[in-house]
This record gives sequence, structure tokens and C-alpha cells, in this order.
Amino acid sequence: MEITLERKTHRDGRPVYQQIADQIREAVAARRLEVGTRLPPIRELAKRLGVNRDTVAVAYEALARSGLVKSTVGRGTFVTDPPLPALPPPPFEPALSSLTERLLVLERSRPRFGSAVDAVPMHALIPDPSLYPADAFRKSLNRALLAGGPELFLYGGPQGHPRMREVLAKRLCSSGVQISPDELVLCHGASQGIGLALRLFAEPGDVIAVEEPTYNNVLAAASGLGLQTVPVPMRDDGPDLVALERALKRPEVKLLYTIPTFHNPLGTTTSVSHRRALLAVATRCGKPVIEDAYEADLGFEGTPVPPLAAFDDAGIVVHLSSFSKSLFPGVRVGAVAAHGRLVDALTALKQATDLSDAMPLQAALAEFIECGEYDRHLGRMRRLLRGRRDALLEALDEHLPEGSRWTRPDGGYQVWVELPPGIDTSELLPDAVAAGVLFAPGAQFHHDGRPSNALRLTFAQADEAALRHGVEILGEVIRRRGAGAPRRIDRVHI
Amino acid sequence: MEITLERKTHRDGRPVYQQIADQIREAVAARRLEVGTRLPPIRELAKRLGVNRDTVAVAYEALARSGLVKSTVGRGTFVTDPPLPALPPPPFEPALSSLTERLLVLERSRPRFGSAVDAVPMHALIPDPSLYPADAFRKSLNRALLAGGPELFLYGGPQGHPRMREVLAKRLCSSGVQISPDELVLCHGASQGIGLALRLFAEPGDVIAVEEPTYNNVLAAASGLGLQTVPVPMRDDGPDLVALERALKRPEVKLLYTIPTFHNPLGTTTSVSHRRALLAVATRCGKPVIEDAYEADLGFEGTPVPPLAAFDDAGIVVHLSSFSKSLFPGVRVGAVAAHGRLVDALTALKQATDLSDAMPLQAALAEFIECGEYDRHLGRMRRLLRGRRDALLEALDEHLPEGSRWTRPDGGYQVWVELPPGIDTSELLPDAVAAGVLFAPGAQFHHDGRPSNALRLTFAQADEAALRHGVEILGEVIRRRGAGAPRRIDRVHI
Repeated sequence: MEITLERKTHRDGRPVYQQIADQIREAVAARRLEVGTRLPPIRELAKRLGVNRDTVAVAYEALARSGLVKSTVGRGTFVTDPPLPALPPPPFEPALSSLTERLLVLERSRPRFGSAVDAVPMHALIPDPSLYPADAFRKSLNRALLAGGPELFLYGGPQGHPRMREVLAKRLCSSGVQISPDELVLCHGASQGIGLALRLFAEPGDVIAVEEPTYNNVLAAASGLGLQTVPVPMRDDGPDLVALERALKRPEVKLLYTIPTFHNPLGTTTSVSHRRALLAVATRCGKPVIEDAYEADLGFEGTPVPPLAAFDDAGIVVHLSSFSKSLFPGVRVGAVAAHGRLVDALTALKQATDLSDAMPLQAALAEFIECGEYDRHLGRMRRLLRGRRDALLEALDEHLPEGSRWTRPDGGYQVWVELPPGIDTSELLPDAVAAGVLFAPGAQFHHDGRPSNALRLTFAQADEAALRHGVEILGEVIRRRGAGAPRRIDRVHI
Repeated sequence: MEITLERKTHRDGRPVYQQIADQIREAVAARRLEVGTRLPPIRELAKRLGVNRDTVAVAYEALARSGLVKSTVGRGTFVTDPPLPALPPPPFEPALSSLTERLLVLERSRPRFGSAVDAVPMHALIPDPSLYPADAFRKSLNRALLAGGPELFLYGGPQGHPRMREVLAKRLCSSGVQISPDELVLCHGASQGIGLALRLFAEPGDVIAVEEPTYNNVLAAASGLGLQTVPVPMRDDGPDLVALERALKRPEVKLLYTIPTFHNPLGTTTSVSHRRALLAVATRCGKPVIEDAYEADLGFEGTPVPPLAAFDDAGIVVHLSSFSKSLFPGVRVGAVAAHGRLVDALTALKQATDLSDAMPLQAALAEFIECGEYDRHLGRMRRLLRGRRDALLEALDEHLPEGSRWTRPDGGYQVWVELPPGIDTSELLPDAVAAGVLFAPGAQFHHDGRPSNALRLTFAQADEAALRHGVEILGEVIRRRGAGAPRRIDRVHI
């Protein structure tokens, strides 16, 4: 059958997914598509029509909801047999925006780990609650509440609590970033910061450059904002600069999102010289850079490399900080640091988004940092994480098959493992879950979700013994897939 | 001079504001526009070019920044005399998205009250901190932290704390809204809820129907999301249903945003019959309704009218609740209630926006409600607000000139006052500030910011004596403008 799209945007017409669904529906009604016919795979039809795969996926889902087709994982989508009788008109259901429909599809593509309670948790990048200094923080919170009085329960203004901004500006300055408290906009975790920073420069229809692989939630955030992504491949020392320049030169590409320190998912840190070179490329192309420094406080080996923002003479870097990984996510304090007009614009965006954050938590965090508890906590975390990293790398060396490679992080929680070619880690995951180990398959860090032979392992929640046990299981699961005997000799680091 | 726009969107080209700025710049360079020439007023040029006024405003600002023109309030925008010498190329400044540029313009148009510390604060809709049960809340917070342990500092999932959702669902059910805890998505104040609910149905380029006048921050939120607004005039008993049907029938209009109870800025509450009729219109048009019930707990007179969602058989109402006005804003707990697929979609949007809220505050609020403190606080607030309302209405009756009209709220914090025709309350504001009283001019509640002879007075922060004093000053300020002697006899309620 032939499918014709009138236009690729839906202003004044039907959304593209609906055009596709309608034409298939008509073809079924006119018996041009027989019962039992297999519809083309989503990827293939998307390519043929020159549309996003999500669009086709949404069209197939709409058909499935009205009972016209049925999808079976691994087999495909078929015209139902027997076709269901025409249903009475459904009760009125409000139409979701197509951005939201797309986000739903993306959301459903996340791997679910719900049932695997006893498995070794090497999938999540969330610190273990048993490490949280909850009691010390509660004391700081009480001190802040008593000192701040009822006024602390007011709106605090879109930039956030002044004391917390002072404390953070001081820390950023000592890491080399010249920033004043007035140039910070505090926000609801770095995740909200990502959204604000993206919206600063890009709007629906625009494109953003992302590293590949990259933090999966930035892909979801971009999708929810109607932004396309162009991938810049990661090399040993950060994003490929030739590909970066090619991407940033395109007028529709508005910015680069980068994670130079303890990259997610790679765990790697780019060198000072590469940071300077990257900024030179961005400056030449006239495009800003969003630096996500979400794990910057968690370096446990060597001298910390200064943030990208420390080398930013032109004021083109927007710097994101977070306490979700270094302390705990529940404090929901992140920050965006920028210069000049960008600060006004960020403030306006934050104001239009949710007016203000919760001042009690920001005041408590300021107190917690000032009284030294945060640095004491960081000291404990760094020692612990270094031990875990060593245990994990040793276990990988012992249990992974020949031809595997992995990174060696100097901080943070994650190691990126490339298995021998030919293994699709998304397909491996169900076996691993059944055998008792959880990991994040590489595909979810690809801008287009394409298959990957890589995976991310974290040492955020599993202790050293659990990490060794988990990697042993993982090695076995891979071997059962026939990927050879464990390698014993070479360490190959990416 | 002539200005030509290539196209009205900027895909693959320069933004429209830049096209305008560039052509003026060229005209100045080529001496087609002489030094001292007055540029056309923003409104006029916008009309001539068929573009938004913000677009022209942004263009003029860009010219002013590069020193080519100068704007003087009340006089206009002139080509500078003498023209500044061509500056060296400015250091590279990242280009903001045009949505963000527009938001900045909107932000700058807000009235500023900064210097008026001693004036009677009748402008703000923020409860007075001296009324906050801060100490009782701190106790609830401590109980919640001790009971929840360190796990309370984890991400809590995008829907929010289970106990808080149970407590809120129970309260909504007793107000007539059939909702289960699983149908609630908690969020960062109702302000974040507005953004999530708008994005559910509308995306950049779409239009939303709003009441006129309406909550000014919803206009900012819509603007930041790239949504246009179509106004539906408010009548005595809610939005005009004929205008509403005309608006909702347009395919590009995706939803209605309405505040049926203690309307902001009007203070009015629509009747049950009007609620039913409004839902019938929305259902007929196949469009969802966002109900903002931000002050629903603050009724102080008569039987509460059930929320719109209580009459929603079709599942087309998305209901927003908040504790920012009834308790204090610093708790940052709002909620979106919806049905079916809408809940999945809201959850995905919340996840893509900021992953999770701060569980400690949600758990504390659940505790605070369950132990009865919230209802005790509401009891105190209702008595106090009723007294303040009476004092305010009496003072209006005494001090406002003949031909003024105002509303009589049964709850909440705000009264809408219409002054005799011909008075522009935005122009009145500086005199009022100088004389010692603050109010919110009506223009800021208009979707297009056009002048208004109305204003919003709140009794959130001023006590009875201050309210009487403030209205007396206001009456004098109006009289000085020559709007007649104070009226003594008729009460006219809108």
C-alpha cells in the first residue's frame, strides 16, 4: 500500500501520525490490507516516509487502541484476525499534544526493572540511602528553620535563597569558575536546570548537539521540549571536535550539551587541552555550551580538572551543578550559573516555570555546607567510591570475555563497558535480570535508541562484594550467549 | 521607510525581530532614517507588519543595545543624536531563543514595587508570613523525617509521595471530585502544575482559551511555552459561554484554562449551573478544561460550590490544587488530578521536567494535614479573612468615587475594583505608590496587556486597619485625578 503525507508539520492539518494511521485504517476498511497482513516494521516505514520513528510508533499505537492491529514483541504488527467490529464512538477523550504523545512513547521504551528486587543493582545512578547523612541534614534543616523563621516559607524569588547562592558561588570560584551569587539561578535539581538551559537558546523545531552516548534524561527533556538532537561521537578524550564543528556550524543547531567531568554514561573526564579546544570550536561557531557538572564534587583520584566554565573567557558556557549525586536527590537543589543577559533570561524562565523553589531546603543545604558536614560527607564518599571502583574493575578483568573494553573513572559512579561486537545489550538484559544482575543497556544513551554492544555499570548502590558477585553473573550471562571464555590477561581501557 | 518580512517564522532564516532590526539599522546607515527621527510606535508598527507587539519591542531593544536608537517613556523611540560611532564587534553573545526574548519583554512589563516599603500592600496575593503555622509545620517535618528515614531523601518518583497523594485524594473526594491517589501527580506548586497541564494538550504554535481577566502568571507560562491566548470575557457568573464556544470550536484552540472558585483577579465564584453549562460547551467542542482551584480551601462564607471536576462525567477536566495560598508558598506542593491516559502523560512530563519533587516536604505536609493542624489553620484563616474582606468592602464603599464597582468574594484574598471609565490604573499606580498604597493594575491580567480602568486589591497581607487606611489613600489618589467625589450611598457589586 502507498502512504502519502501532505506535509510534515501539522499546522492547519492532521498530525503526521494521524495521517499514517488514517490511511492504514482506510486500507483495512477497503480490504486493500487483508486480515493477518504484517505492517512494515516501524523503522522501515519511518525511513520510507522520511519521518521520525516515534511518529510511526504513535500511529501504530493509535491503530492498536482502536483494535485494528495487534503488536507482538519480536514478531511485528499485524492487521487483527478477526477484525474487531466497529466500536461505538468512544467517550470523548482529549487529544494530547504530539510532543506529549512522543514523550509517552519514549517513556515506554525505558527498561523496567520492577520485579527484580534481589538482583545486584548496577543499573541506577542514585546513591544508596544508607550512605545519606540524613540525621546531620535534619539538624541543619532545624537550625535553618529556627534562624529563618516563618519568612523562610515565603516564595523566595526565582533565583533562590541568597545564602545558598553565596555558599555555592564560593565553591565554584575555588574550582576556578568566576561567578558571583547574583549570577546563579537555583533550581529544582540539575534536571530542571537542563530544561531551563535548553530553553534559553532553543525552541521547538531547533536542534541541539549532544554527545553520543549521553545522559538519557537529556534526550527525554529535549524530546519533551520539541527539540531534535544531533549526535557528536565521544572519543577517548571527549567529543570529536571535527564532528562538533560540523554540527555547531549548522544554523539550526543552537547549542552543545556536554558532560566533561565523570561523563554519563562513560565515566570519563576530558583533559584541559580538549576543554580549551572545545571552547574554541564553540566560539568559532558562535554557539553556547551547556556544561553539566552533576558529579563534579565526587572526584576520588588525581587532581580535579577545572570545569569547562573555568576556561570560558567569552561567557558562552552555562554551567549546571547538582547535589543529587554527591549528597542525595531529595534535597532538590541544583543551580545554573551564567553571565550577563543569560542570568536575566534564566530568571524569567524559572519564574514562568514555577515561581520559586522551597527555601527551607536551600537554607538547610547552605547551613549543612557551611558547618562542614558536606565536606565531611564528600570525604567519606570518595574513599568508599574509590574502593568500589577498584573492586568493579578487578571483577571486570576477571569475568568479562576477550574483546571487552571498559573505562576507568576518576570519580563519580559509573563505568562504560563495551562487549565484543555482535552482542545487543538490550537483548542481553532480560537474561541478566533473570540471573540476578541489573545494568543500563547502551541503547538508552543513544539519541536514536539504536542497538548497542555497550552497557553502563554503576557502583552507586552495590558494595564491593555485591559488585564482584554481579560482574561474575554478568560474565556468565554473556558467556551463555556464546561470546567466548573470560579473558584473564589484558586490561584494555577505552 | 519600508520594512519587508521574508516570512513570519524563522526556520532557516533570521528571526522576525532581527529582520526588523536589521532593516532599520541599514536605513540609518544609508541615511534613509535621519538622526532624531522618531520610529513608529511599537503598537503601530506591529499592526502594520502583522506581527506580535513583543517582536517589535525586541527589535527596538536590540537597536537600543547597540546604541542606534534611544527610547524615552512617554515620548517614543528615536534614532540617536549624535549617532554613536560604530562599536568594535561585541564579544560573542549567545543568541537567546525568540520565546525567551519574548518572556524577557513580558517580565520587564511587570510593575515594580521595590522601593515602596512602607506602603499598604494590597497588590500581592501572598499570605502574610506572620500567619504561617511555621512551628507546627516544623514539628510535622521532623516527625516525617524520623518516620521516613534516609529513604525520604531519595527521588520519590514523578507522581510524588504516596501518603500525600492518599491524603489529598481523600480531601478531593470529600469536595466531590472522584479521584484516586494513583490519579494524582504532585508537583512543585500549582504554578508548575499549570505548565504541565498546558503542555499535556498544547504545544508551540497552538492557542489556549483563557478567561479575561485572568491570572497573570498563566499568561507568562503560556508565552514561555510558545502558546498564543484567546480571551473569553468574564461575565457576572463566569466566562461568556457564547464566546467560549466560538473559541473552543477553532481547531487550533486546544483547551480552556479557568478559575471557577475565588477567581484571580476577580474574586468571584461561578454557580453550579454555569459550571454544568461550561462543561457541556467544552464537551460539545471536544476540548479539555484546566481547572485551577488554587484557593479552593479558603472559602469563608456560604456553602462551598463543588469544583468543576465534580461535575465532569466525561473525564475532560484536569484539576489543579495548591497549598501556596491556604498554608504558605514555601511548601511547594501542588497537584494535578486527571483520569486515564492523561495521568500517564502527566507523569511522563513531570519525569522529563525534573524527575521528582522533594519528598521530605510532601511527607511533612501529609503529616501536617493528618494530625489536624491544616484544618485548624484553615479555621483561623477563614475567620480572619472574612473580617478583612468586610473591612475592605466597607472602606471601598466609603472612599471610592461614584461610578466605581467591585466584587464581593466568598473566599480567598482578592477584590476586583472597576473605577469610572477613562482612568488607566497603570497610570494611576505611580501616584498610588508615592501616596503609600500598592495595587495590581488591571492591565496585567489582560492577555494583551491593554489598558484597564480596573485594579485588583488583596487582603492577604494588610490587616483591617491597614486596609481601611490603604483604601482611603487610594480614594484620594483617584480624586486627585479628577474622578469625582467619593460616593456615599449605593453599593454596586459586579
